[in-house]
Amino acid sequence: MMANYQFRTADHIVAGPHSISRLGHHVKASGLKADHVLIITQPSIVKLGTISDVQAQLTELGMRSDVCTDILPEPTAQNIAEVFADIREKQYDMLIGIGGGSVLDGTKILSVLHTNSKQIEELLGTNLVEKPGIPAVLIPSTSGTGAEVTPNAIVTLPEQELKVGIVSPFLLPKLVILDPVITLGLPKPITAATGMDAFTHSLESFISNKANPISDMFALESIRLISRSIVEAYENGSSIKAREDMLLGSAYGGMALTAAGTAAVHALAYPLGGKYNIPHGVANSMLLPHVMEFNMDAIAERLSLAAEPMGIAAANMTAEQASRAVNDQIKEWTQALNIPQDLKKYGVAEHDLDELANSASKVTRLLNNNPKALALNDIKGIYQKLID
Amino acid sequence: MMANYQFRTADHIVAGPHSISRLGHHVKASGLKADHVLIITQPSIVKLGTISDVQAQLTELGMRSDVCTDILPEPTAQNIAEVFADIREKQYDMLIGIGGGSVLDGTKILSVLHTNSKQIEELLGTNLVEKPGIPAVLIPSTSGTGAEVTPNAIVTLPEQELKVGIVSPFLLPKLVILDPVITLGLPKPITAATGMDAFTHSLESFISNKANPISDMFALESIRLISRSIVEAYENGSSIKAREDMLLGSAYGGMALTAAGTAAVHALAYPLGGKYNIPHGVANSMLLPHVMEFNMDAIAERLSLAAEPMGIAAANMTAEQASRAVNDQIKEWTQALNIPQDLKKYGVAEHDLDELANSASKVTRLLNNNPKALALNDIKGIYQKLID
Ligand SMILES: NC(=O)c1ccc[n+]([C@@H]2O[C@H](COP(=O)([O-])OP(=O)(O)OC[C@H]3O[C@@H](n4cnc5c(N)ncnc54)[C@H](O)[C@@H]3O)[C@@H](O)[C@H]2O)c1
Ligand SMILES: NC(=O)c1ccc[n+]([C@@H]2O[C@H](COP(=O)([O-])OP(=O)(O)OC[C@H]3O[C@@H](n4cnc5c(N)ncnc54)[C@H](O)[C@@H]3O)[C@@H](O)[C@H]2O)c1
Ligand SMILES: [Fe+2]
Ligand SMILES: [Fe+2]
Repeated sequence: MMANYQFRTADHIVAGPHSISRLGHHVKASGLKADHVLIITQPSIVKLGTISDVQAQLTELGMRSDVCTDILPEPTAQNIAEVFADIREKQYDMLIGIGGGSVLDGTKILSVLHTNSKQIEELLGTNLVEKPGIPAVLIPSTSGTGAEVTPNAIVTLPEQELKVGIVSPFLLPKLVILDPVITLGLPKPITAATGMDAFTHSLESFISNKANPISDMFALESIRLISRSIVEAYENGSSIKAREDMLLGSAYGGMALTAAGTAAVHALAYPLGGKYNIPHGVANSMLLPHVMEFNMDAIAERLSLAAEPMGIAAANMTAEQASRAVNDQIKEWTQALNIPQDLKKYGVAEHDLDELANSASKVTRLLNNNPKALALNDIKGIYQKLID
Repeated sequence: MMANYQFRTADHIVAGPHSISRLGHHVKASGLKADHVLIITQPSIVKLGTISDVQAQLTELGMRSDVCTDILPEPTAQNIAEVFADIREKQYDMLIGIGGGSVLDGTKILSVLHTNSKQIEELLGTNLVEKPGIPAVLIPSTSGTGAEVTPNAIVTLPEQELKVGIVSPFLLPKLVILDPVITLGLPKPITAATGMDAFTHSLESFISNKANPISDMFALESIRLISRSIVEAYENGSSIKAREDMLLGSAYGGMALTAAGTAAVHALAYPLGGKYNIPHGVANSMLLPHVMEFNMDAIAERLSLAAEPMGIAAANMTAEQASRAVNDQIKEWTQALNIPQDLKKYGVAEHDLDELANSASKVTRLLNNNPKALALNDIKGIYQKLID
């Protein structure tokens, strides 16, 4: 009996250029009611003027609002707990998160902290959140983690030098707004890194042991959109069309990974984030071609199916050739996008690799999805390639 | 400014062969709680033994359950109101609908009747339902209307000789189970008609004036799945693989139509159902090639994009040729599936056409989505083709 597969996402998704300027309308159409709203965001978004526009729209709906920019990039559990301690007395009844994956994950966790009398540490793991949070609206400003549509939130635990996840359907938001306009000013290195993160979600979901017809649809459409637009979005950041492709591709990547899970690339990326603060997207894009190389003999057939949506003329290639062409394309992107392929730049030394491999080997939730098992030595070998 | 577009569907979708045998698990995993459940279904499903299995699973969850088979095919508002009058005193706190679109639409309406003190007639239209209903689980047994994932429910109004819809996000279910096993025994004519209904949802969404990147993804994947399996499902009804394609294709068709709307085919089909009781899928498949023919000069470019997912080798064709090949393929299917192309068989006579056209012209909600405007005479002309 074939395993069952599932789909579950945000309640309501609105997309298209300038959709944020109708936020008030969409909040109302989603049936959301609130008296006191906290907008969680980051300074770069405040500078755009987006937040004052959002506040004006909320005022028109009769909702008071405050703004918080205290969630830090790749937030630690402690950072989020401190923000919660600051805001809990205000009794907010709705949260709007506008920012990168860090802000969105922070918002998701703050939402459930309001209703579950638990410490963040007690929620780490799968299905440990007991009650729905207060309603959340999520608006991504990177393309991206797909965090706006996933039931996951990631925190850094510096003591343990790891990143770990909370997984719960209660982390899903009531409303998502995908407005490419907000991503137009995304700096080049962040466009590159977050774009490759999104691509990694889709490619890993597509080759995951848990891949299924639903995740495949989202993964392949995401691969198609990102492939045709990632270099354009990087080189010509003001292209609305390229930015829209990236934003949709990133949301579909989140849907794909919710249904099928990411695998070894993400498992190996977590210790790089946890211990060396390497940005999540950078860690993934460094690792992606090497992990695929390692997987190659097990996935040539599958990977070859990504060639066509990637725009590779694969009609006359064998599966092996097409899958190599896919991985070559990925390598070309990391060069075109100027993503460093060198762990030393981030302070990782040869003698750190054993400990890194050891940490990665513990991320069994994701390693189990990988089409090939990785021994400790395999993991170390992959990190090694980024040191040489 | 490009219009915004949206996505919204059932909270949680579980799919795969034999997923119904884990219904209890999925109900629990969805966080659904209930004391007293009403299972709304039809005699053909009771005969399969599915219902007693479902009841046993509910008992294990500590839920009492009753069974109702009183929703009729293509139900009238009166039929549903009578069922509600029978059951309201029982104070059910969850509904499980297992059946074709008729049972699913009936279940959706019964769910909101429980919480909105309104007559069905007062809910007809868009967003007139004021409160969420009691939780509903929907399990389609045809492939199909896609009603399990749409915010729509259709009732027949015999007095007005029309079919009309209730549209409200509160009609969306908490949980959907897509189990192809339950569709294995679907009789040939129903396989054919409901399969063409699903295909029509996707093709109409794809050429709709409201088509957008989200609806296109679902529409094209639905077109791909249905095209590769509709004839196989008809000829070899016990093929799980073909049935699974049809069931997913039908759900994606529902998602596509939610995002983009159906158009003239559905508008012209409604009076055929309302006045002559022509099954919904039969009406659609009779009309589909003729409406596409009418639309052709406006949609050749778009329609040609459906060729490749339909398995038509279109690489060396012009857009015009490819779009003709698409419509030819549709005509071939209606023959292979033995769908009558003759309104007279259903008691429609030449002198009825004016009134039919008049009724259809009032379905402006759908006609507005059609890429070409239809004058009264155009509508009559299309019906005329099914009389000659
Ligand atoms: N929840 C999930 O499903 C999921 C999936 C993958 C990753 N993540 C997590 O998400 C986090 C990473 O998120 P991210 O990659 O989006 O980066 P990020 O949110 O950390 O943002 C990176 C930097 O870009 C800035 N920035 C963001 N949007 C901007 C804009 N429009 N203009 C200018 N500057 C902007 C931020 O202020 C920040 O300095 C990590 O903690 C990662 O573990 C979560
Ligand atoms: N809500 C929506 O979004 C939406 C969309 C399109 C159509 N509809 C509506 O749905 C209704 C049509 O639904 P339908 O086409 O699924 O047909 P149906 O539900 O009327 O079923 C047709 C016949 O097939 C039988 N049947 C169903 N499943 C069976 C099975 N597995 N084995 C044996 N017999 C089975 C039924 O008992 C019935 O006699 C119409 O009222 C139409 O207007 C709704
Ligand atoms: Fe990621
Ligand atoms: Fe239909």
